[in-house]
Amino acid sequence: MNRSILILPANDLGLFTDLYELTMAQAFYQQGMFAPATFSLFARQYPPNRAYLVAAGLDDVLAYLENFHFSPDNLDYLRSTGIFDGNFLEYLKDLRFTGSVRAIPEGRLFFANEPVLEVTAPIIEAQIAETFIINQVNFQSLLTTKAARCVFAAQGRPLADFAARRTHGIDAALKMARCGYIAGFQSTSNVLASQRYGIPPSGTMAHSLISSFVSEIDAFRAYAESFPDRAVLLLDTYDTIQGAYHAAVVAREMKAAGHKLVAVRLDSGDFADLSQRVRRILDEANLGYVKIVASGGLDEYEIERLVQAQAPIDSFGVGTKVGVSADAPWSDMAYKLVAYNGRSVMKLSADKASMPGPKQVMRLLDTNGKFSRDIIAQSDESLPGAEPLLQSVMSNGQPTAPSPTLDEIRNTLANDLQRLDDQHKGLYNPPHYPVGISGQLEQLARQVRSNIEES
Amino acid sequence: MNRSILILPANDLGLFTDLYELTMAQAFYQQGMFAPATFSLFARQYPPNRAYLVAAGLDDVLAYLENFHFSPDNLDYLRSTGIFDGNFLEYLKDLRFTGSVRAIPEGRLFFANEPVLEVTAPIIEAQIAETFIINQVNFQSLLTTKAARCVFAAQGRPLADFAARRTHGIDAALKMARCGYIAGFQSTSNVLASQRYGIPPSGTMAHSLISSFVSEIDAFRAYAESFPDRAVLLLDTYDTIQGAYHAAVVAREMKAAGHKLVAVRLDSGDFADLSQRVRRILDEANLGYVKIVASGGLDEYEIERLVQAQAPIDSFGVGTKVGVSADAPWSDMAYKLVAYNGRSVMKLSADKASMPGPKQVMRLLDTNGKFSRDIIAQSDESLPGAEPLLQSVMSNGQPTAPSPTLDEIRNTLANDLQRLDDQHKGLYNPPHYPVGISGQLEQLARQVRSNIEES
Repeated sequence: MNRSILILPANDLGLFTDLYELTMAQAFYQQGMFAPATFSLFARQYPPNRAYLVAAGLDDVLAYLENFHFSPDNLDYLRSTGIFDGNFLEYLKDLRFTGSVRAIPEGRLFFANEPVLEVTAPIIEAQIAETFIINQVNFQSLLTTKAARCVFAAQGRPLADFAARRTHGIDAALKMARCGYIAGFQSTSNVLASQRYGIPPSGTMAHSLISSFVSEIDAFRAYAESFPDRAVLLLDTYDTIQGAYHAAVVAREMKAAGHKLVAVRLDSGDFADLSQRVRRILDEANLGYVKIVASGGLDEYEIERLVQAQAPIDSFGVGTKVGVSADAPWSDMAYKLVAYNGRSVMKLSADKASMPGPKQVMRLLDTNGKFSRDIIAQSDESLPGAEPLLQSVMSNGQPTAPSPTLDEIRNTLANDLQRLDDQHKGLYNPPHYPVGISGQLEQLARQVRSNIEES
Repeated sequence: MNRSILILPANDLGLFTDLYELTMAQAFYQQGMFAPATFSLFARQYPPNRAYLVAAGLDDVLAYLENFHFSPDNLDYLRSTGIFDGNFLEYLKDLRFTGSVRAIPEGRLFFANEPVLEVTAPIIEAQIAETFIINQVNFQSLLTTKAARCVFAAQGRPLADFAARRTHGIDAALKMARCGYIAGFQSTSNVLASQRYGIPPSGTMAHSLISSFVSEIDAFRAYAESFPDRAVLLLDTYDTIQGAYHAAVVAREMKAAGHKLVAVRLDSGDFADLSQRVRRILDEANLGYVKIVASGGLDEYEIERLVQAQAPIDSFGVGTKVGVSADAPWSDMAYKLVAYNGRSVMKLSADKASMPGPKQVMRLLDTNGKFSRDIIAQSDESLPGAEPLLQSVMSNGQPTAPSPTLDEIRNTLANDLQRLDDQHKGLYNPPHYPVGISGQLEQLARQVRSNIEES
């Protein structure tokens, strides 16, 4: 399997950046500023109804940094804009990423204000990488968090990603499949994601199959003939209850021929009520083994409601609302300069202040091995008994280790979620997990602030 | 310029589909169902606070259909899943898209329930294309609509797309730049989109530039030295008002050297108040030509508020909330079978019924040339004086004409918006534009429904 999916050919990635990254790079170049800088990526606050975030997107960042360069075609374009200096463009020709990256591994939980990734590199390299890094980590963390909330709400019932058609483009569709799988989904309907990431593919049938036949039962029979051991029949093209009777007839025909109908799917209407009625129809036809899948407009809130209503739904297909993280489609993730040339720096903007210097996040456990609190500290602090979360993942522009597999990342998340108290996983305004700041870091922030205010 | 940006290499696109498209294709294949089908793409309802949608995404659909095929690698993967029949996989090897497409051109307004695109092709070809078609048209229409709302709110003030870092991935970032430009934005910060689509690039500076220097004014001077005629200085790294005084000093130094500071940028705090105070500082320094740019958390609602407050802001940079269409990150767009083998079909699901048969959308104008109402009709109906919106864009798998340029699409939208009554453009619960259904189409729907209910 690939380290990652660079959705664009590596030759195009140099230009995937904001113009100001490049104009600032030229100013740094012309000022002779090649010293190392540290940039820190963190979420300023929680999206609504969230009290944790799941780290995701690092693998794409590492692949991007490894491939980082400007092709001759890229440079021709930059020259054509008339914005850039010829010497600077010559300099860009040989520019590669030579720095280091420390990061909280994918699948681990992190909290607001905690750096999830820190880049230390000559300032020009670290600056240009900003746009791609925020883009991937922000939305993959957001989608994985949304998916993890669905898994929590489903309480053990399997989930499938059906989002490909309503995500924001192709990259998002592929990453949604990946994020869902990390969060614990069982499968994806996205065949390309299935191939590229090794995620089990899944699918049922669409209304078009039913309506292309003159009668619903003929369509069911045709599909069962093609897939005698993996058919899932869609009930609501015309009338869900009538559809359930038709499915029961076909399921019994399949049974007589030595096959099993796997499931039926509900895709509209009141799922709590319909699932009860359909379950009864199937059970009365001695089809207790036929499962019920629900899909259509589902998110963690609706799944929780259905689980609490004890709706006899065996698994959920989630699409649109999860694929766009509908109730929180963005997070306030920022990539801020925290040190340049050995000097700690910070920003003081109203409501957007950042903390200075390279950092470490320390996680403290209670006696049962559960998370008790985190402390954001300076990168060189140590705290006995605490687990430091940021790890070195790239050094001198090269990854320090092979990427974990998707299954390893999935296990990492499952472990972390098990060690986080359930109260923080609640779907509605969960209380925040305690995150402190070390005395040393606080003191540094006071000092940097006063240096700035005096200057 | 490319017809479009296929973000994935064409070899991968065969697998960018939902598994069920392929399992249904196998059932059609095994039943000998190769007759033409028509699928219709439409939005079931308006996203919140919207009363129009802008057609976008067609160019990507045409590029996809032209390139549609399964590579040997794709087929190997499908074989490895154990789901598919060998004969069917052989059939897929030579499958190309041979059908026709009718569509409402990009940049035109359309309304709920109106087909924005219809595909007529052998059912297998039309079915497999579903996932990609919905994916691109849904989110590009959504983003263009959001961007058009911002342009309306800004009342002539220029807008720039700054969204690349917070869109849902790379495809979304590129398409946001394209959608913004169609909607009337002046520029994008996304350099790759700028290159690929020919959109003017724009950018200012980030806080990191300021904080990498020991003092703000030194950073301003360095940037002005690198870009003496195109600098925009960011004021809020430490304190916006103090930043404005520093910018004024540097602007006067630039002036003395024969250069002009282009603008200053506000990125946090109360923009209405800060813009007044900063304007005063600049004007008192005889810098009336220095413009004020605002960015940070802006969307159409906030832009309208600032314009109404007569904030002296000359242009807006919009990012996150527009790039994810934050208040409406999804729409209920569906691609439904409406005819198979000459027979009109429809779906009756609760709240999700579809209208049968291939259609045309007729737009009626009033005596001033403004839109008065639309009528959804059967595809072969004619209505004197009405403009039919769906045009033939692909025939026998080939585009019927070159794609319009981005500027042409932008003009199309500007024209359409001028002809739509302003009441429908309001940002809060605008009244719906009148859309009727022709008598002939209603009669067909009744007939198809009764055929289904009797069968």
